[in-house]
Amino acid sequence: MSLESLVNQLKGYDFGNLYHDDFFHTWDKSQDELMAIFTVADALRELRENNKSCRIADSGLAISLFRDNSTRTRFSFASAANLLGLEIQNFDEGESQIAHGETIKETANMISFMADVVGIRDDMYIGKGHTFMKEFSEHVQEGHNDGVLEQRPTIVNLQCDIDHPTQSMADALHLIHEFGGVENLRGKKVAMTWAYSPSYGKPLSVPQGIVGLMTRFGMEVTLAHPEGYEIMSEVEDIARENENKYGGKFTKTYSMAEAFKDADIVYPKSWAPYAAMEKRTDLYAQGDKAGIDALEQELLEQNKSHMDWQCTEELMKTTKDGKALYLHCLPADITGVSTEVGEVDASVFERYRIPLYKEASYKPYIIAAMIFMQKIKNPAAKLEELWAAEAARLADNA
Amino acid sequence: MSLESLVNQLKGYDFGNLYHDDFFHTWDKSQDELMAIFTVADALRELRENNKSCRIADSGLAISLFRDNSTRTRFSFASAANLLGLEIQNFDEGESQIAHGETIKETANMISFMADVVGIRDDMYIGKGHTFMKEFSEHVQEGHNDGVLEQRPTIVNLQCDIDHPTQSMADALHLIHEFGGVENLRGKKVAMTWAYSPSYGKPLSVPQGIVGLMTRFGMEVTLAHPEGYEIMSEVEDIARENENKYGGKFTKTYSMAEAFKDADIVYPKSWAPYAAMEKRTDLYAQGDKAGIDALEQELLEQNKSHMDWQCTEELMKTTKDGKALYLHCLPADITGVSTEVGEVDASVFERYRIPLYKEASYKPYIIAAMIFMQKIKNPAAKLEELWAAEAARLADNA
Amino acid sequence: MSLESLVNQLKGYDFGNLYHDDFFHTWDKSQDELMAIFTVADALRELRENNKSCRIADSGLAISLFRDNSTRTRFSFASAANLLGLEIQNFDEGESQIAHGETIKETANMISFMADVVGIRDDMYIGKGHTFMKEFSEHVQEGHNDGVLEQRPTIVNLQCDIDHPTQSMADALHLIHEFGGVENLRGKKVAMTWAYSPSYGKPLSVPQGIVGLMTRFGMEVTLAHPEGYEIMSEVEDIARENENKYGGKFTKTYSMAEAFKDADIVYPKSWAPYAAMEKRTDLYAQGDKAGIDALEQELLEQNKSHMDWQCTEELMKTTKDGKALYLHCLPADITGVSTEVGEVDASVFERYRIPLYKEASYKPYIIAAMIFMQKIKNPAAKLEELWAAEAARLADNA
Repeated sequence: MSLESLVNQLKGYDFGNLYHDDFFHTWDKSQDELMAIFTVADALRELRENNKSCRIADSGLAISLFRDNSTRTRFSFASAANLLGLEIQNFDEGESQIAHGETIKETANMISFMADVVGIRDDMYIGKGHTFMKEFSEHVQEGHNDGVLEQRPTIVNLQCDIDHPTQSMADALHLIHEFGGVENLRGKKVAMTWAYSPSYGKPLSVPQGIVGLMTRFGMEVTLAHPEGYEIMSEVEDIARENENKYGGKFTKTYSMAEAFKDADIVYPKSWAPYAAMEKRTDLYAQGDKAGIDALEQELLEQNKSHMDWQCTEELMKTTKDGKALYLHCLPADITGVSTEVGEVDASVFERYRIPLYKEASYKPYIIAAMIFMQKIKNPAAKLEELWAAEAARLADNA
Repeated sequence: MSLESLVNQLKGYDFGNLYHDDFFHTWDKSQDELMAIFTVADALRELRENNKSCRIADSGLAISLFRDNSTRTRFSFASAANLLGLEIQNFDEGESQIAHGETIKETANMISFMADVVGIRDDMYIGKGHTFMKEFSEHVQEGHNDGVLEQRPTIVNLQCDIDHPTQSMADALHLIHEFGGVENLRGKKVAMTWAYSPSYGKPLSVPQGIVGLMTRFGMEVTLAHPEGYEIMSEVEDIARENENKYGGKFTKTYSMAEAFKDADIVYPKSWAPYAAMEKRTDLYAQGDKAGIDALEQELLEQNKSHMDWQCTEELMKTTKDGKALYLHCLPADITGVSTEVGEVDASVFERYRIPLYKEASYKPYIIAAMIFMQKIKNPAAKLEELWAAEAARLADNA
Repeated sequence: MSLESLVNQLKGYDFGNLYHDDFFHTWDKSQDELMAIFTVADALRELRENNKSCRIADSGLAISLFRDNSTRTRFSFASAANLLGLEIQNFDEGESQIAHGETIKETANMISFMADVVGIRDDMYIGKGHTFMKEFSEHVQEGHNDGVLEQRPTIVNLQCDIDHPTQSMADALHLIHEFGGVENLRGKKVAMTWAYSPSYGKPLSVPQGIVGLMTRFGMEVTLAHPEGYEIMSEVEDIARENENKYGGKFTKTYSMAEAFKDADIVYPKSWAPYAAMEKRTDLYAQGDKAGIDALEQELLEQNKSHMDWQCTEELMKTTKDGKALYLHCLPADITGVSTEVGEVDASVFERYRIPLYKEASYKPYIIAAMIFMQKIKNPAAKLEELWAAEAARLADNA
């Protein structure tokens, strides 16, 4: 779509509340606000593809606060920040050092003197990640109110224990493009299903993010997992509320086959049981190493009893015309490739490799759009200004 | 103060020697030079608060050479560099690898081909940190003279074994703002006192920096510590010389109570005994691990015999009107919060939390001002130019 | 040379194939292409020395993908990227994590969404480094063709198992300047010789890069090493082919003295025997730690039997007028300085210290020139434009 069309589309949305606000969960935001972010993500991509500069800052820091490792999300955040003219500064202090209340407050202020945005990833412990982000946000707001911080950095949730909005939004933008518009998503069947992996402790925020977001576009979302692999009930509640609000559907099943049947979109992915993650969080709090090790063994054994939960060629045949769109947040556990038995058959994964990479390619733009909306009061005018400007991103004279 | 007033103030100082020179110790610099740095720090803050660009470089590296960990100083240096348009490049080679003379010379040249400034932190070993910085400086000067380096990077001391100028200057600028002008500091009583902490080996450069600098504004500085916790005698000499030069006063006492009595400003903080630090430096040189461990135990025991050196509510009541301004370089060891028994009562710390954060907020600007003065021949004209320019730091169109 | 002369010189070369292509080995490139890179390196240096901005990018990432540690090359790459306006993003994932074919493809795409250039260093294992770079390049090309990547990042080989082109090109540019023009290199005698070091496993890519490149300027290159320290035969073949193509000479000898005799240029440097490196690669593949340790001991012993291979004052006297230019990629193992007995006498090294540092100073410009030629279709016009522009690199108003 042309920049002009995107800007016109953007003008039709009511998104004023995004300005100077944090992005924690997709369900904190209105439909218009989400649509505005999709539109700005597309517009920034259109600008960059036409070698236009997307800089909105001459200087300023984007703090990357990761409490676990992540190459992909880190690079996406770095790409988004750089695109807008912000310099990445990594803050990698271990959890132990900023676990204490007083210290979070202090750290939040100390690293934010010249920070415009803080991207936080904290997905390891149930009940911790989102709480940390909220506290961080309150501390920098207080610091700004008290005259300590000239500007209040806004927070972008790069994955917490509850939601993974930059992932689910990138997934959704991928769907919008694959199906030719958000209106074409209405009625589409999505299978968000658990899949077997020989690892343990994978976060729940991906499936939670998917059921919390995809139920907003009129899609029929089925969540499938073995008994015992429940996700957080509060997110299921959100998905159910979305049924009424947005005319979609949310179903649960203990059968992968049932979820795949006639699905337009499948998202088979391993995650840890919520109850076990709660237990692990307690064990960590108690410093009970033996307990953690025992739990790990227990969970790996539990996983093994569900090795039949694989996205096989056979199962794919049962989807809509045998051609459901396969999604994954990557990296996937691919049978015979990255693991002996995993989430997905190698031939299925390979057939969808290019769409999967495209799915991932939306993440830097989703993040950049979130920051753009947090920082720019009138984004439509700014996009037009960037389009009209002579500044090239790369000054090739070809 | 308005940018215009600050520029006018700046024009009254004689600061030409800062240009292209290093910043090692505050006592290497004239009164006018320090005042010029304070003024430029305020001016850069005024520019940034008005969303003006402070960029003076289109490209160029700011090398961060830290020989121990420091989140706060690292972020302050990164913020300052970014504000001016320089990109941070971290050099984290361990001490062992650049301990040797020849290698320091080589490393200094190899990392400086496109470096405008090198921020060095090396505060661990008595007699080492400053020496290292001086050597580094001589090597890059030689490299520049020999035609190896196109530009000579200037050095900013981000904490050595003798002084911590970016800290003491930030502290002083905080006082200037709290008391409404440097002229109002005259006659004010400052208590720089040792305080108990259950840790060991904290550097002496903070108290040394404070007595070396605060005695220059006509303040009455009392240094208090238990017997055996002496600071470097050469810095005490500087403080005593300042008495005559600048009309202040420098007193020593072994009583925390005496120092706090009627004080306008208190700075209670733990540090290690100088003699013990000398011994530790020797033990490290000999690679005597057992000796180092024994020394650590000895020092922790020695600290314990001075647990009464705490900044309590009771002691605070004895200060001027019971309301002395409490300073700390952060992080503090807070009783009942970050440690069982520490430097300061939790209620005292909490009452001064906002001023403490403000105190810290000056550091990025002090560092930026030091670099600005090292790089810009006519800073008054440059500040006026930046103020007049249309370039916004953040191109919000609100 | 003036910018104008350099641009005129550049216009005389045929270098169009550099545009959008990778730089793997110097022998992949035509004589004109290499000369164009030398010329652009000089031009960028001329621009920077005249405080002109060399920025060609407003935003964009330069990915630094190092599979071993290297301060010098890392800083050179960071300097070059920063000079051109690209922001460095380090990718330090260990080899184990991207060893697998599928994963290299995925990683290559995931880190390249906004990458203009990827600098790769992978020199540890024979038969691996170049292969990895080629694969990486094919993956990003495929990603670009498939519409995953908006731009294809170009690859700069920052050292592989076969060649070290940024080193050999910097060395060659140093020679061009020392001897007053590439035409003056014709007939010069170069001794690329092995030298003793008490370490093991140093890569072969430096001597290989030197014999593969220096034989192209009509020089008489002698490769000297003890029996058993052969380099890759395919690179020797290239050197021999160059004899015919470019009128130089390539000789081999087992005598350091023979190589030094009447040499104009000497490059004494330790490296590991090719066969041993092949064996080590196999042992690593098998995870045979004991075998690796045994091999290390064996190689150190083998080295010891060639301790007479040192660049001594005596040996230097046998070179042309006793004044051959001494080259080294640094750091050198200096007898009595960095090691008891090493590659070179301390007095020889010290006499050539400044030229050695200058030699190193060309590397950031060689890298920048490679990137410049990969990104800019008409580099002559762009250089003229940068020269004519008012933008200062450092906006000093002296």
